[in-house]
Amino acid sequence: MPLLVVGTVAYDSIQTPSGQVTEETGGSATYFSLAASRFAHVRLVAAVGEDFPDERRAIFAERDIDTSALEVVPGGLTFRWAGRYEGDMNVAETLDTQLNVLGTFQPRLSPGCAKTPFVFLANAAPRVQASVLDQTPGRRFAMLDTMNLWIDHERDALLEVLRRVDGVVMNDEEARSLTGERNLIRAGNRVLELGPKVALIKKGEHGAFLFSTYMFHALPAYPVGEVVDPTGAGDSFAGGLMGYLARTGRVTIGNLKRGMVYGTVAASFTVEDFGTRALAQATRDDFEVRFHEFLHFVT
Amino acid sequence: MPLLVVGTVAYDSIQTPSGQVTEETGGSATYFSLAASRFAHVRLVAAVGEDFPDERRAIFAERDIDTSALEVVPGGLTFRWAGRYEGDMNVAETLDTQLNVLGTFQPRLSPGCAKTPFVFLANAAPRVQASVLDQTPGRRFAMLDTMNLWIDHERDALLEVLRRVDGVVMNDEEARSLTGERNLIRAGNRVLELGPKVALIKKGEHGAFLFSTYMFHALPAYPVGEVVDPTGAGDSFAGGLMGYLARTGRVTIGNLKRGMVYGTVAASFTVEDFGTRALAQATRDDFEVRFHEFLHFVT
Repeated sequence: MPLLVVGTVAYDSIQTPSGQVTEETGGSATYFSLAASRFAHVRLVAAVGEDFPDERRAIFAERDIDTSALEVVPGGLTFRWAGRYEGDMNVAETLDTQLNVLGTFQPRLSPGCAKTPFVFLANAAPRVQASVLDQTPGRRFAMLDTMNLWIDHERDALLEVLRRVDGVVMNDEEARSLTGERNLIRAGNRVLELGPKVALIKKGEHGAFLFSTYMFHALPAYPVGEVVDPTGAGDSFAGGLMGYLARTGRVTIGNLKRGMVYGTVAASFTVEDFGTRALAQATRDDFEVRFHEFLHFVT
Repeated sequence: MPLLVVGTVAYDSIQTPSGQVTEETGGSATYFSLAASRFAHVRLVAAVGEDFPDERRAIFAERDIDTSALEVVPGGLTFRWAGRYEGDMNVAETLDTQLNVLGTFQPRLSPGCAKTPFVFLANAAPRVQASVLDQTPGRRFAMLDTMNLWIDHERDALLEVLRRVDGVVMNDEEARSLTGERNLIRAGNRVLELGPKVALIKKGEHGAFLFSTYMFHALPAYPVGEVVDPTGAGDSFAGGLMGYLARTGRVTIGNLKRGMVYGTVAASFTVEDFGTRALAQATRDDFEVRFHEFLHFVT
């Protein structure tokens, strides 16, 4: 089944102990759709500026990602982020953020997009996420990501939108901050009380937890011997997971668990090179090889 | 098969966000043997002072742990440790250490002890660990634990003893410090190059990795909703693992993987109350229930 992602397409400038890159095509919707497109037809909804040339769309076109809803804002500039990783590379230090076209972006879905059964709301202001939910009343499964900015400053709007989605994916610190629980097992269960039927807590190199009614699942991360650039790992994880769910068309505990494996596999490609380079090169076969390798690692 | 542990029996005074306790019976050999005794006959080798009354031996006697080699040093005082946990409870802040009888402890094994096929060398000075190896030439499988103190200050002696053991268990920071590799996957593989055929890297609440020739295994931790006191979790993990290996009598990849599950189950009991209180109460049935629960969490 087709899958809609509403998120960002960005120019990322990144420094890590392995080197640095300038104005790579990044953003949540980019990583998500590259990962998800191995499994399902992806419709990408985002905004870029006039400084985003057609050549940059090639990475999407090569994966048959539908960019007809990638809005070019006249006179606008593409969202830019610059960050640096040091030490254990778990947290990026943001050096610069230029919202540019993101500052006013309000997704307006075409009738075709609005009928997409699987919907992923990448990290964005809760009111933007709510507006997408308003426009997709016939959706089958919607999941959202968020961040501390909204947890701290738009808490009520975030709680409102959490009541309307089926699933949520966030990292460990966000789950702790949202629920006020230091213990991650309790935090995950508290997230479920806020509305979602499924809560995924990402722990970076330590894997992810899945919480749902009466169930708990723990997944280690696919082991990577050299992390070059962690940018986009979380969105790649969500893309692998949601892509697999959309491909099966059915959200079941079994499909969620298998989807998480495809998620950590997608993230493993992402971190092995700067930006989207390794993820964009990974074939469906590469995904399958690591999927089966992973099953050996954990059983 | 019987299992020998050479380590410490201590008086621990512990502060955590849940409360505090004073002079609880603790120490690496205590936690290890309580966990291992659910599976195998354990012989405990350690030293205490004259301030360690017979009543304190009851927790060992109740589990049929052989304390005939628990040496009482005339005129000596039992090793004391005081520590505090705050925040994420992953690291203890040591408030006080009184080595007392540990300062001069040199294990001398009886002929019976020396013939024990499975040997665990809890964290101790490498020369003490080497002396136990000298005394157990007929052993089938020996594993050691260590700490940053020896990695930093007794590196050569530690490398020497690492070449003589079959397995090693250490935490993530110790593996990084020993090998100079930040990346834990590389660190684990580098540990194997130092001699052991099996390297277990503990990651606290994030589980553990197993490295061996041509294989890698990742295990999440058993999920605990309320961590009261993490003291002894690592030694409990080693005890569950080694106890299971000794029970089967055979070190195989499959037994190591199952042993790791018993290890994280043992640790899950330990952290649920202060000191050894929860671990000492857990029956073999309690272990089996969580073992099977855990398999559901990860598959």
